[in-house]
Amino acid sequence: MSTENSNFPSGDAKVGIIMGSKSDLPVMQDAADVLKEFGIDYEITVVSAHRTPERMFNYAKEAQGRGLKVIIAGAGGAAHLPGMVASITTLPVIGVPVKSSNSIDGWDSILSILQMPNGIPVATVALNAAKNAGLLAAQILATADGSLTEKMQAYKDELRRKVEESADLSSQ
Amino acid sequence: MSTENSNFPSGDAKVGIIMGSKSDLPVMQDAADVLKEFGIDYEITVVSAHRTPERMFNYAKEAQGRGLKVIIAGAGGAAHLPGMVASITTLPVIGVPVKSSNSIDGWDSILSILQMPNGIPVATVALNAAKNAGLLAAQILATADGSLTEKMQAYKDELRRKVEESADLSSQ
Amino acid sequence: MSTENSNFPSGDAKVGIIMGSKSDLPVMQDAADVLKEFGIDYEITVVSAHRTPERMFNYAKEAQGRGLKVIIAGAGGAAHLPGMVASITTLPVIGVPVKSSNSIDGWDSILSILQMPNGIPVATVALNAAKNAGLLAAQILATADGSLTEKMQAYKDELRRKVEESADLSSQ
Amino acid sequence: MSTENSNFPSGDAKVGIIMGSKSDLPVMQDAADVLKEFGIDYEITVVSAHRTPERMFNYAKEAQGRGLKVIIAGAGGAAHLPGMVASITTLPVIGVPVKSSNSIDGWDSILSILQMPNGIPVATVALNAAKNAGLLAAQILATADGSLTEKMQAYKDELRRKVEESADLSSQ
Amino acid sequence: MSTENSNFPSGDAKVGIIMGSKSDLPVMQDAADVLKEFGIDYEITVVSAHRTPERMFNYAKEAQGRGLKVIIAGAGGAAHLPGMVASITTLPVIGVPVKSSNSIDGWDSILSILQMPNGIPVATVALNAAKNAGLLAAQILATADGSLTEKMQAYKDELRRKVEESADLSSQ
Amino acid sequence: MSTENSNFPSGDAKVGIIMGSKSDLPVMQDAADVLKEFGIDYEITVVSAHRTPERMFNYAKEAQGRGLKVIIAGAGGAAHLPGMVASITTLPVIGVPVKSSNSIDGWDSILSILQMPNGIPVATVALNAAKNAGLLAAQILATADGSLTEKMQAYKDELRRKVEESADLSSQ
Amino acid sequence: MSTENSNFPSGDAKVGIIMGSKSDLPVMQDAADVLKEFGIDYEITVVSAHRTPERMFNYAKEAQGRGLKVIIAGAGGAAHLPGMVASITTLPVIGVPVKSSNSIDGWDSILSILQMPNGIPVATVALNAAKNAGLLAAQILATADGSLTEKMQAYKDELRRKVEESADLSSQ
Amino acid sequence: MSTENSNFPSGDAKVGIIMGSKSDLPVMQDAADVLKEFGIDYEITVVSAHRTPERMFNYAKEAQGRGLKVIIAGAGGAAHLPGMVASITTLPVIGVPVKSSNSIDGWDSILSILQMPNGIPVATVALNAAKNAGLLAAQILATADGSLTEKMQAYKDELRRKVEESADLSSQ
Repeated sequence: MSTENSNFPSGDAKVGIIMGSKSDLPVMQDAADVLKEFGIDYEITVVSAHRTPERMFNYAKEAQGRGLKVIIAGAGGAAHLPGMVASITTLPVIGVPVKSSNSIDGWDSILSILQMPNGIPVATVALNAAKNAGLLAAQILATADGSLTEKMQAYKDELRRKVEESADLSSQ
Repeated sequence: MSTENSNFPSGDAKVGIIMGSKSDLPVMQDAADVLKEFGIDYEITVVSAHRTPERMFNYAKEAQGRGLKVIIAGAGGAAHLPGMVASITTLPVIGVPVKSSNSIDGWDSILSILQMPNGIPVATVALNAAKNAGLLAAQILATADGSLTEKMQAYKDELRRKVEESADLSSQ
Repeated sequence: MSTENSNFPSGDAKVGIIMGSKSDLPVMQDAADVLKEFGIDYEITVVSAHRTPERMFNYAKEAQGRGLKVIIAGAGGAAHLPGMVASITTLPVIGVPVKSSNSIDGWDSILSILQMPNGIPVATVALNAAKNAGLLAAQILATADGSLTEKMQAYKDELRRKVEESADLSSQ
Repeated sequence: MSTENSNFPSGDAKVGIIMGSKSDLPVMQDAADVLKEFGIDYEITVVSAHRTPERMFNYAKEAQGRGLKVIIAGAGGAAHLPGMVASITTLPVIGVPVKSSNSIDGWDSILSILQMPNGIPVATVALNAAKNAGLLAAQILATADGSLTEKMQAYKDELRRKVEESADLSSQ
Repeated sequence: MSTENSNFPSGDAKVGIIMGSKSDLPVMQDAADVLKEFGIDYEITVVSAHRTPERMFNYAKEAQGRGLKVIIAGAGGAAHLPGMVASITTLPVIGVPVKSSNSIDGWDSILSILQMPNGIPVATVALNAAKNAGLLAAQILATADGSLTEKMQAYKDELRRKVEESADLSSQ
Repeated sequence: MSTENSNFPSGDAKVGIIMGSKSDLPVMQDAADVLKEFGIDYEITVVSAHRTPERMFNYAKEAQGRGLKVIIAGAGGAAHLPGMVASITTLPVIGVPVKSSNSIDGWDSILSILQMPNGIPVATVALNAAKNAGLLAAQILATADGSLTEKMQAYKDELRRKVEESADLSSQ
Repeated sequence: MSTENSNFPSGDAKVGIIMGSKSDLPVMQDAADVLKEFGIDYEITVVSAHRTPERMFNYAKEAQGRGLKVIIAGAGGAAHLPGMVASITTLPVIGVPVKSSNSIDGWDSILSILQMPNGIPVATVALNAAKNAGLLAAQILATADGSLTEKMQAYKDELRRKVEESADLSSQ
Repeated sequence: MSTENSNFPSGDAKVGIIMGSKSDLPVMQDAADVLKEFGIDYEITVVSAHRTPERMFNYAKEAQGRGLKVIIAGAGGAAHLPGMVASITTLPVIGVPVKSSNSIDGWDSILSILQMPNGIPVATVALNAAKNAGLLAAQILATADGSLTEKMQAYKDELRRKVEESADLSSQ
């Protein structure tokens, strides 16, 4: 197996967002949006464990060298992408179970991402919760970046504020 | 990623039996036993998608060239081995969901093997049913080998005969 | 039980596609389409285990003699067709669990096809994955037909190419 | 398919108890015991849908002619016996899902017996509830036999009496 | 608890169809239709275990005395109607799990009807399968009525004929 | 249906603990123990919805008149006791799903107690959580009894204290 | 953690209805409506365990002092609100599992509300059954308020009357 | 709510391991062991969301100020600890679903940790996979510590080496 056709570009991206199919984009876009909101450089592309296994291998193998710190991987059905990437890289991998059209209510996506064997963790978030994957990536980067911690606190404060504003239901 | 350390031997094996962990052997041995019973050459080894991803890649990539006709792959939990091997080889891959100690009653093993996306089939058998995986491999080889078909018919006749012998429960 | 009304025609079909109800056709047509794409002769008909048990018996009994090499059987709910056909023929049987209107989210279809007892394998594919059933049939025939192996490799190359073409999401 | 080797004996049995494997006997014996208690003639034998499909066919085909009124069929895993027998005979068929060793907590047994398509009912009882299958057979026969109705009422009275006797827990 | 307000009329009905809510009628009507097709007298009414417990009690208590031979009871969610009626009457009770709006994909309906304790069987049919409940009632009555057996055989022949007519898919 | 044999004694009991079978006692005893701990009078007896339906009816009908304030009902499998009692009494009914030997991992017990239709609530606690049923009964009585509120606060303080005492794991 | 921003008003409310998100209101409104029907004072507001943890803490801490007798808490997905409130207050807490958009068919909502550990009960009602939560709150208050008991009996009588009125299906 | 009794000590710990009950220790110890193996300072203690809610609040509130970078939280049943801690801190929280004695095969633990709403991620690992939680914490810290990355690569190399050593099954 050769790595010649590997051509993942160098750049400033700290987080790599990958997904098994372009049809996962409506779900996975939320991860990109939240990273943009936090001012974190990211890249986003399609990498299929099953249809492009060498591309997947190369992506995982080169990720750390290209400067990525965290990988977010979304997939549906028998979702092998997050776990396979985690088996190759030493970077933390966040798995997003996608309730795709070929999924059984999401159970297959969840179990094939979550139930990784000892030695190879995948940080799994809720079904379709790409936004939380983005937030988790930000929290991971924040462990070494105080300004991100402040933004995260502000984000949480805003969540709180919005609930408090909408809390009064007496006039409903 | 290099293939230099690939050292899967050439031989007469028509069926390759692989499993994610040596702890799967008590289940997977049934596949070997049934192939032996049918006089089909096989090889059996541990190939872990998650702990030895390059070995898995090489095994799948070289399988056809080494003369294998069918691959039987067993794994438990987030069981990616059968599907990943199927993504790389053109050989038919039979998946055996193993109810390993880290599995949730086998549901994770079943769903992560069965629910493969369009384009990449895995022929899944019942939970822990490595014997059926061996029989299915024999049936596949029998499509081009009349003597195997005869053995398969004899096997089925014997199944029938054993039930008929034990059928009388009147004296129980 | 007589076989007089059996009238399955002779022909060139290598793969028999059967389904429990005409209402399964929208799902099962994918198997036919993929076989056509690979240039493999097939036949397609309705055979109900529950409403036409003798027809099912005869179909399974005569399949090999009529030249079939593989049977693809799709059914939903308490889906007995694939397993019953497998109990009668020595041919490899591929089961397609169909998420029919009387199915509980497909769980009944999957479990009653997958969980066959030792001795009688059914090669089960994902829920509604008739396309994968067709591909698996092609892989089985390819074990004795090098030209089919080449077509299968080309098919996989095309899958890969399509992903690579659509992989760039940077302008989304 | 011939019926020559059919040799199910004539007799007085009103209820036929069949099971997919002799290993189901510890569960299915309860059906026999309750029928004996009600003084109902029965027969009991092993009939496997998957290992002895012709035997199953003949059993179902001849059942009514031999004087049977009700069939009780128990099976585990992908449990096709009750449904296949029901597809062939016009007699009422009572299905007992058996939690056999190859079953996934009984879910496969239940769903493959219960979820029969329109046109072919199986009267399904609880997991392993062969006793209830025997009682249901007795209730069915009681629809045309007043003495059985009286015994059934006495049986229910005894159930009640036993609970009332054990109801006082104040001294526990 | 008094039975004074009991006013279930006498009549020729052999089968009583009851349901927990009028909203179950679209499902349960199938049972009535099939009984009409077989020329079997039936009655149909709403009896709620939870909202009209005394009515339920009286219905079950009086059923046999009013000439009923079989009761078909449909309910959804925590579906107690079939089991409670079975606890009171000695008649065979057929339970129809209804996938009502307050049901969790039908699982609650199925399990609360199917999983009756030893001593109190309910003959459970598939989710929403009121037609099969009607057919099962007819099969039960046919155990003492040869003309019903003939009609049942004709019904099965018609099922078979319809499949055979629609079996040819070659021109699809 | 007559109420003559009703003989539930008068007394000081504020909480009635009932269970479908004496075999549920090892689970249900926890409810009694916690009530004793809170100094709340209770009674405890076996009442089976399926084997003693009239006893169940009478128990529910008379409960409030006899001075009971809360009923705790435990049952397993198709667990109809809590819901049926709730359909008859106006008292709050607490349901304890029991993982009995005839239960499918407790799912049937949970769903047939929890999924009550609109109009007839059952306050369901966790699987086998009879202790929590007792605590909930105490909380309900505490809404009109300040001394019970104080005991409840003390109970919670003790829970907290025990955790704090055992919290130090540094020497493990 | 300070309680300075706590500003839950004093008032006559006996029942506090809270929910994790304003999007739960269409479900939770049923609880308010039934309390209004029974003439019971209530308050209704949004309290999110995850987005406003301090608000949740304060709400639970102050509930009893402000005169509340019962808390009804609805939430979906990983639904921690009912259990966390129950961990802080001594009041009885009724949990309503909401089938929100981020829920897996409601299973996550149900299990994370129902399966509370020993010591901290939550009175769980059926999925989306806020009406039953309201009725249960009324039953709890009725244990110390005879007029509420009468209203509850009238409510049950009305349920019964409506079924009886709609029971006649003969002209359907 | 006051924070006076907060007494979590300052120290060098980078990872805080908490669990809902001391009975979770046999599972959670694996996280500590793997951190020790990587030379990462950690602390380990019992913090119960339900029995010590204020302790939980204080722990989460003070975690970052005390120098922690990652929190690992394990719990079973209705497992609220990981999600509640995540709602209060900005640190990344890794959740370990524990299959405790009061859990339904682990499903409740998994779903109540995994299915967090948008805004509040929990990095969930497999059932009982505390070792993977420890590895994930190490990967997170490695994003800013090259020596940890090297150790992680060595750990993966060792995993691979062990499989390769045990891979030869030919003499089994």
